[in-house]
Amino acid sequence: MSARLDAQMAFLMEADKLKAIIRATRNHDGRFENSAEHSWHLALFALVLGEHAPEGIDLARVIRMLLIHDLVEIDAGDAPIFGEVDETAMARAEQAAATRLFGLLPPDQGAELLALWQEFEQNETPDAVFAKSLDRFQPPNLNLASGGGSWTDYNVDFPTFEARLAPKIRRGAPALWDWLRPRVHGFLTGRG
Amino acid sequence: MSARLDAQMAFLMEADKLKAIIRATRNHDGRFENSAEHSWHLALFALVLGEHAPEGIDLARVIRMLLIHDLVEIDAGDAPIFGEVDETAMARAEQAAATRLFGLLPPDQGAELLALWQEFEQNETPDAVFAKSLDRFQPPNLNLASGGGSWTDYNVDFPTFEARLAPKIRRGAPALWDWLRPRVHGFLTGRG
Repeated sequence: MSARLDAQMAFLMEADKLKAIIRATRNHDGRFENSAEHSWHLALFALVLGEHAPEGIDLARVIRMLLIHDLVEIDAGDAPIFGEVDETAMARAEQAAATRLFGLLPPDQGAELLALWQEFEQNETPDAVFAKSLDRFQPPNLNLASGGGSWTDYNVDFPTFEARLAPKIRRGAPALWDWLRPRVHGFLTGRG
Repeated sequence: MSARLDAQMAFLMEADKLKAIIRATRNHDGRFENSAEHSWHLALFALVLGEHAPEGIDLARVIRMLLIHDLVEIDAGDAPIFGEVDETAMARAEQAAATRLFGLLPPDQGAELLALWQEFEQNETPDAVFAKSLDRFQPPNLNLASGGGSWTDYNVDFPTFEARLAPKIRRGAPALWDWLRPRVHGFLTGRG
């Protein structure tokens, strides 16, 4: 039992490093968000917005998925949605990170969380699709709150925003997209 | 439906401010932890360590509780465990904060989350007692990882640590206390 707890604690203390992974989005106060506080914020989004998900999702499972979804960034880093990324290389790096990180856990538990992370990445089950939609829905709201954030940094206009984000958010959370779209449209077309 | 979502989003964006509340504990890299990333780390502790809880807890509920447990600090601030605090004034400030923050939500949802937060604070149900024990178990592990952390800042010796923390951690998570005690003992008595 002690060896089992040793392994669990090694994983949890390694996970602490997610607090040092910096994202492209800014919080209210202008500081760049880190991936640990982002994961908390997303889990809270799920807790509060679960009623807007398509029927049939398991919200407790969505929350667990969101708590672990970014851990691979400890090794692979964060890929900003408006940046240029070699997606094949990124997927390979994230897979290796998942194997290493979840491999710190007792084998049964590591396999379970690795499968949950892979389900999120594959973005096919209702739980994963809703979780992914929230992951795309939260940053535009931070950009609105911080006066532009990554839209300003990456020179993003409304058509680019809509082309990149609409399919991802609408797929798992159509009501949230309908709420968000006019707000972002007003913000991005109202600027100089 | 739109008014309901407006209220939920007002709450979620106000919650963003928890990322700016600084705790007395340091992460691996020496930076002081904020209460949002702390809440994420605790929810992950619950997810991974649930099997060490006394029987009969509802882990999904514990996770929801931990996700919201520190929101009141947005108004009331964080009270370090080894600091001097006027507990009556703090409890009053936190109650007012909870009323304001959960009051941003649609009434049914606000009442539900306020009750969940109050259950955590009252520390009587098995779910709350386990959640509180995790909240006390995580910081010593960060202190061990960061070379002393708040023990150094507050000049804490082992008897003080044990008197302050043992009852709180052992109550909801005796196996975690048994694992932690010798590690902290070795660290705090092995120093100069």
